[in-house]
Amino acid sequence: MKKQFIKDLKAGTQVDDVFYCSRRDVKERRDGGAFLTLELRDRTGSAPAIMWDRIEDALRCVEVGGFYRVVGRMGDYQGKPQFTVSLIYPANSADISRDDFIATSRYDREKMLAELRGYVAAVKNRYLRALLDAFFADPEFVAEFSLVPAGARVHHAFLGGLLEHTVMMCRAAQSLPDIYTELDRDLLMTGVILHDVGKVREYVYDVAIDHTPDGRLMGHLVMGAKMVEDRIAAIEGFPAELSRMIRHIVLSHHGELEFGSPKTPKFAEAFLVFALDYADSRLAIFREVVEKNKNAKWTDFNPYLETNVYIKDQPTG
Amino acid sequence: MKKQFIKDLKAGTQVDDVFYCSRRDVKERRDGGAFLTLELRDRTGSAPAIMWDRIEDALRCVEVGGFYRVVGRMGDYQGKPQFTVSLIYPANSADISRDDFIATSRYDREKMLAELRGYVAAVKNRYLRALLDAFFADPEFVAEFSLVPAGARVHHAFLGGLLEHTVMMCRAAQSLPDIYTELDRDLLMTGVILHDVGKVREYVYDVAIDHTPDGRLMGHLVMGAKMVEDRIAAIEGFPAELSRMIRHIVLSHHGELEFGSPKTPKFAEAFLVFALDYADSRLAIFREVVEKNKNAKWTDFNPYLETNVYIKDQPTG
Amino acid sequence: MKKQFIKDLKAGTQVDDVFYCSRRDVKERRDGGAFLTLELRDRTGSAPAIMWDRIEDALRCVEVGGFYRVVGRMGDYQGKPQFTVSLIYPANSADISRDDFIATSRYDREKMLAELRGYVAAVKNRYLRALLDAFFADPEFVAEFSLVPAGARVHHAFLGGLLEHTVMMCRAAQSLPDIYTELDRDLLMTGVILHDVGKVREYVYDVAIDHTPDGRLMGHLVMGAKMVEDRIAAIEGFPAELSRMIRHIVLSHHGELEFGSPKTPKFAEAFLVFALDYADSRLAIFREVVEKNKNAKWTDFNPYLETNVYIKDQPTG
Amino acid sequence: MKKQFIKDLKAGTQVDDVFYCSRRDVKERRDGGAFLTLELRDRTGSAPAIMWDRIEDALRCVEVGGFYRVVGRMGDYQGKPQFTVSLIYPANSADISRDDFIATSRYDREKMLAELRGYVAAVKNRYLRALLDAFFADPEFVAEFSLVPAGARVHHAFLGGLLEHTVMMCRAAQSLPDIYTELDRDLLMTGVILHDVGKVREYVYDVAIDHTPDGRLMGHLVMGAKMVEDRIAAIEGFPAELSRMIRHIVLSHHGELEFGSPKTPKFAEAFLVFALDYADSRLAIFREVVEKNKNAKWTDFNPYLETNVYIKDQPTG
Amino acid sequence: MKKQFIKDLKAGTQVDDVFYCSRRDVKERRDGGAFLTLELRDRTGSAPAIMWDRIEDALRCVEVGGFYRVVGRMGDYQGKPQFTVSLIYPANSADISRDDFIATSRYDREKMLAELRGYVAAVKNRYLRALLDAFFADPEFVAEFSLVPAGARVHHAFLGGLLEHTVMMCRAAQSLPDIYTELDRDLLMTGVILHDVGKVREYVYDVAIDHTPDGRLMGHLVMGAKMVEDRIAAIEGFPAELSRMIRHIVLSHHGELEFGSPKTPKFAEAFLVFALDYADSRLAIFREVVEKNKNAKWTDFNPYLETNVYIKDQPTG
Amino acid sequence: MKKQFIKDLKAGTQVDDVFYCSRRDVKERRDGGAFLTLELRDRTGSAPAIMWDRIEDALRCVEVGGFYRVVGRMGDYQGKPQFTVSLIYPANSADISRDDFIATSRYDREKMLAELRGYVAAVKNRYLRALLDAFFADPEFVAEFSLVPAGARVHHAFLGGLLEHTVMMCRAAQSLPDIYTELDRDLLMTGVILHDVGKVREYVYDVAIDHTPDGRLMGHLVMGAKMVEDRIAAIEGFPAELSRMIRHIVLSHHGELEFGSPKTPKFAEAFLVFALDYADSRLAIFREVVEKNKNAKWTDFNPYLETNVYIKDQPTG
Repeated sequence: MKKQFIKDLKAGTQVDDVFYCSRRDVKERRDGGAFLTLELRDRTGSAPAIMWDRIEDALRCVEVGGFYRVVGRMGDYQGKPQFTVSLIYPANSADISRDDFIATSRYDREKMLAELRGYVAAVKNRYLRALLDAFFADPEFVAEFSLVPAGARVHHAFLGGLLEHTVMMCRAAQSLPDIYTELDRDLLMTGVILHDVGKVREYVYDVAIDHTPDGRLMGHLVMGAKMVEDRIAAIEGFPAELSRMIRHIVLSHHGELEFGSPKTPKFAEAFLVFALDYADSRLAIFREVVEKNKNAKWTDFNPYLETNVYIKDQPTG
Repeated sequence: MKKQFIKDLKAGTQVDDVFYCSRRDVKERRDGGAFLTLELRDRTGSAPAIMWDRIEDALRCVEVGGFYRVVGRMGDYQGKPQFTVSLIYPANSADISRDDFIATSRYDREKMLAELRGYVAAVKNRYLRALLDAFFADPEFVAEFSLVPAGARVHHAFLGGLLEHTVMMCRAAQSLPDIYTELDRDLLMTGVILHDVGKVREYVYDVAIDHTPDGRLMGHLVMGAKMVEDRIAAIEGFPAELSRMIRHIVLSHHGELEFGSPKTPKFAEAFLVFALDYADSRLAIFREVVEKNKNAKWTDFNPYLETNVYIKDQPTG
Repeated sequence: MKKQFIKDLKAGTQVDDVFYCSRRDVKERRDGGAFLTLELRDRTGSAPAIMWDRIEDALRCVEVGGFYRVVGRMGDYQGKPQFTVSLIYPANSADISRDDFIATSRYDREKMLAELRGYVAAVKNRYLRALLDAFFADPEFVAEFSLVPAGARVHHAFLGGLLEHTVMMCRAAQSLPDIYTELDRDLLMTGVILHDVGKVREYVYDVAIDHTPDGRLMGHLVMGAKMVEDRIAAIEGFPAELSRMIRHIVLSHHGELEFGSPKTPKFAEAFLVFALDYADSRLAIFREVVEKNKNAKWTDFNPYLETNVYIKDQPTG
Repeated sequence: MKKQFIKDLKAGTQVDDVFYCSRRDVKERRDGGAFLTLELRDRTGSAPAIMWDRIEDALRCVEVGGFYRVVGRMGDYQGKPQFTVSLIYPANSADISRDDFIATSRYDREKMLAELRGYVAAVKNRYLRALLDAFFADPEFVAEFSLVPAGARVHHAFLGGLLEHTVMMCRAAQSLPDIYTELDRDLLMTGVILHDVGKVREYVYDVAIDHTPDGRLMGHLVMGAKMVEDRIAAIEGFPAELSRMIRHIVLSHHGELEFGSPKTPKFAEAFLVFALDYADSRLAIFREVVEKNKNAKWTDFNPYLETNVYIKDQPTG
Repeated sequence: MKKQFIKDLKAGTQVDDVFYCSRRDVKERRDGGAFLTLELRDRTGSAPAIMWDRIEDALRCVEVGGFYRVVGRMGDYQGKPQFTVSLIYPANSADISRDDFIATSRYDREKMLAELRGYVAAVKNRYLRALLDAFFADPEFVAEFSLVPAGARVHHAFLGGLLEHTVMMCRAAQSLPDIYTELDRDLLMTGVILHDVGKVREYVYDVAIDHTPDGRLMGHLVMGAKMVEDRIAAIEGFPAELSRMIRHIVLSHHGELEFGSPKTPKFAEAFLVFALDYADSRLAIFREVVEKNKNAKWTDFNPYLETNVYIKDQPTG
Repeated sequence: MKKQFIKDLKAGTQVDDVFYCSRRDVKERRDGGAFLTLELRDRTGSAPAIMWDRIEDALRCVEVGGFYRVVGRMGDYQGKPQFTVSLIYPANSADISRDDFIATSRYDREKMLAELRGYVAAVKNRYLRALLDAFFADPEFVAEFSLVPAGARVHHAFLGGLLEHTVMMCRAAQSLPDIYTELDRDLLMTGVILHDVGKVREYVYDVAIDHTPDGRLMGHLVMGAKMVEDRIAAIEGFPAELSRMIRHIVLSHHGELEFGSPKTPKFAEAFLVFALDYADSRLAIFREVVEKNKNAKWTDFNPYLETNVYIKDQPTG
């Protein structure tokens, strides 16, 4: 278990812990010798590192994509942290834990999963219920669904991200059929729960989060609709109409063709799954951006929100 | 009180009731004489009318924009209703009631207003509460706010439309600060309640709903922000930060510049007021479109949703 | 078998043949009586029809969507053909043939199919060949593939349309791997042959061509990729890489997200299938537009080409 | 008064003058010591600075946002100027003058203001004249209006920028009502003079130019329309039509929704104020870009003009 | 010379004058006979016409594109004028004058031409002056330039339209080099005068205005640049730089690629020619739209302005 | 003749050869001295260079845009090559060959030209043939056409690029008139051969490839259409229709206004020249991108393809 995390290290601290190497360069010193620059990462961020002397052993063992025990001192470069490394060598695999290197949801995954099972249990339509059960009675699926991030970089890019994203959307969705009584509650909730299941095939997240080849070539909408169709095929008597509506919800939940949905939402429940997904994603970005800019009034321009974000300077009451 | 409404009149029915004249043309008959064609309206729709003989009196009294007692028979033209008029003359003003000529919310306006006052009463921030009270303690504003439509044609184009739209958004908004705990509940609810107040200056709705000149030249976002600023000016010590945030919510609630917001939402509560407004409007269009196409599987292409809408053929469970 | 087709009927011709009724209205005559207007169709087009007298029997039996024996005379209304009907009654089912009511490819379907089987036989990669064989050894699939239109209105909207479109693209594609030697010939040709297979589930074409519910809610790209994936699942040892590439070709062949592809082409063969599909479709529109405007120099504005089309006035040599 | 300005300093020059510090970093030397890098600014530009030795005192006193007396030598780094600092300490407030740190209009502000008062005096409509007088008889407004920049970075980003921009537009506008006789001269000129008054609340410009919170959350269009409405409210009998037209001009002068106008111009005078504003802004960018590239034939790609700019190599006659 | 023009004919007037036939249809009467409907035009507009009886002679002689003497009575159909024709036969060619059938500029063409020659004479650069002289000393060019419309439908669609458009732009341009002193006056004025010369090859306007084949296939920008290049080729020593700048002005004067300019303006004078062209065109549309809606407050939605236009109800002072 | 090319130099190699200097900076050493950084280029790429000591002579003779004999050692900086220079001085002009500094087509220019002359010889229409002969019998044109690149950076940015691009398009085009029999073969092939002739005036390519002023101000579409028109003017009896069609092909071959075509394609042959040009260009980018990323599965995001490119990991069969 790591004890020293990049985000918390102050300039001047002595460091002795495991880090992931995400970049490695050999550079020439003025006197003709060489020095080594690295980028080290853990789940809290990344920092550049520099090793001036006795780099011969390091040159032999350090590669991009490996985990290393790093001894040195945290310094400061342009107001940002920078390691000065005195010793670096391969870490014991016993000392490497994924939770140290990918961020994880602030919420307890077990509790979220239990809450989600509650939403599943509340579905009354027997076909939709059977479909959800087919997914959530499959331990392999549940394990993946509970762990996979919901994004690679922009939002929910952490372990349990998809679970957190889905649960938040369920909470927001559940009161809506009481307000908009024309909605089919079971269809809406099933759509919310399943809209992103394709993401379990979209990401790898052993250490860094990355897209699978299938994720980039097909995308989680198409893969998710296929997963749903395969589960439906095993349920006897599943109505054709219901099948096409739930698959349409999965395919259309990005809302617009230019966001990668091959079809736009064609009924109210499909529209709402898109709207809830959109709102939860944007709120997550607002939240993360504000958390990273505690003492500012304005953040930098955020390319996903396409604006600077304003930060309240005080409780407004 | 009218008893015969256009939507309900079957072909073959004898008609004798009050209608609003929205078009009037004189046309030439083959034998050199003239006949009269009209468009008649009430709150349920419009229908063409034709008067073949003895049109001299009609020519003298019938004008666009007037209310007339019409005697005749409802016929059928290209599968659509058409009046054949035998007699037409000005209606008694005692027989003319606006509720007969503009549609009205399916919900009781008094109950909706009471519910809205409940949301106002739940606001704890004393400045925001004072701002809301300034609006809702003003009987003239309340009368307008309760009656004005929230749209001219597309959605909520009926008496009480703004009130219904605002109350539905309040219902949908109120659980969100429990789910997304970073939200400022009072700011969000105040934003929801006030986001469209400018619409009381955007529409006239004596008979047909139309835009005011100010509505078209300034728009309800700018007029609403001004109304809020004027009320704030009368509240001592209202914090500048809170003032600019609430006005920003009003101005940014169309979400994108190309939808007429001069600024895009720059914090989470502003974004959410936009998202709730967007969702409630779209859901209203889905609802109206489905209601008008009861027996179809697909509606015509809807220009606001930019798609045909799919209609479920049966309960899905 | 029909002998009189709408496109060929000159004004003044006596008509006695079977037509499809696509619209029906009862209208009021000035003397209080009624007359009937219809729209009649066959595979060559549609024309309005009017029936002035003795319409009682017609009113009882004529409905939209039926086939009728029509006796009357072809007239002219605003330079366009119009029937004057004297007698109309239900057609014998023996007199109704789909080929009379939907247009068909100008090429022989058997010959085109044989040519296509030749392209299949030329594929050397054993997995791709097995995949193609799985489709083209299935008589039900072949029957549908040979008959289904490739469009509902704009281009290839005729029986055998998909087959013609696919064969033309094969012809254009086959020389390209000799020119661009980096291309994988088998992958390209398989992609061309399979890119639109989902269209067999996109259209119904019993009389008029229309979309299936699945066609509108999922679309032929997603359905086609699913059909390919299902066939692949039955082929032992099919390489994962090849599987994802061929499915990506199907999904990306509309080229841009805004044209309904959930992913844009990510390698050269996928790009080329898009380019060939695009070129063949546009050329078909140019061809149809020119054929309909034989004596003009310019056609009307064509919404798909987004331009008027120029027509050469003579052999250019 | 400063004598040494960044733009004019040649490599090799000894420097001893006051600068504004806009960045400050402590970096690690190879020998374990530290050095200091800064960014220094004045009205003519900015330059990086580096301090190698004896930085302890500097570390204590130098902060971002302060003014400092800097002693050192101007060097060259990648063809661009770089200070090497030997001594740095807080400047005497008597030595700090805003005009040294923000650029100023090339024209005399007094003369421009006098010219502008001439355009005001020429307005004959008594209500519009009263409105203009209400602004220009207010010394506080006049002081701000004469000093505020018209932009933060792109054009007119200097003291007196708004005044210069407005006067230039007045000059260009005044002949147009003679050419286009349907124009209302007084409405046009009033619109030109007032279109940007909201900018006095959009910028702070004590040292660097920046947006106010209100500027970013509301924008100068909405704030300007409010300022106009407030002044109008104090003028007895001001016609409603005229009021909404002049406010519409202010709100619509960005011409398109996507440029931040909540309404597009709805009459000729409003359109022309937009066109004049657009032309004056673009011409200012062309002018500045050409001035910065005296000896080139082409400038770099300019993101506001969305093109490289061509520069004539000689008098063309 | 015509005396009766469509725009001025009141319902009930007896008509006997020459009109252009732009549509002709034969329709069937209920009694089996036929009647004739036409569209008649002159320079003031168009109106439908109907001929009930004795149409045999008319059928023989009336064709689309011919001029006819029409005797009959002006009636009213849906509030719009409609002829009832009693007699129609080919007009004497002596009675047909183009000025009766295409609208013409409200300004005197000779005076406008003289004014334009004044702008030419004021150009001091000897090469640009020689270029302008090459055009304006060519009587054939001058004749075409003075007569050709500047548009087919939207604005300046009348004889002398290009001349009027060019002169108005010259008037607006001439004060700008005094205001923006960095401008090259001769280059700007030459650009204004020549920017649309290609239009003499873009339109035919014998009776109705239409595009030439070259106009639609190449466009007036490319043809104009070619005309300029050809004239330059005949001027000895014309500087290459000046040649490419003036041709660039012609090619870039639509301002944006999507408006058909192959290049966007790359220096200030080119930008200004675009801006002046844009402003003059839009002002012309505003003017025409207002003139056609004298008594309204709002016009219909105008597709070129992309808005409804507001009309002042009174002098604003 | 160069023997050492940047792309092939491994870290550690001793270098002694001619390079082109494309950047030069003097920087300050910590001890107050100076060092020199350069960018060196040849046809295979560019690399940074650094010179630490004895730079006085270098400072005097090294300028951007010159060719230099460079002695030193190739090192490594952040995984990329970097020269350490010990000696640098002007190269002998005898040692400078353009082919060493601009890349060249992988195909033999003489053979490509012969193939192209074959396509010319196959044109049967005597006017089009005469037009092609007019170009290809002109040795100066042929020399330029055979050497000019077809792009500055993105694709075909090498000597012989236009020739290669044109020949590849000819190969792809020649089978299409057999498949799409409505096509005019001669018009299509002439369009393909001439579509880019304007590029001989668009680029300079003495050392680095750059745009001419005319290229940026007019573009190769307009210049090419002019070149075609000039050649046509010398051919007696060339039909006007044919002339405008071939010029339209040249002008419209970018397909869309926003890609710089002043007109979109208005007949099938013009559309096909666009489609072939588009396909050949994109395929060239795919090819170059794959070649540069031999061992990857995905390339970086490519701004022209607007995607990452997927690279097959093995023969797919």
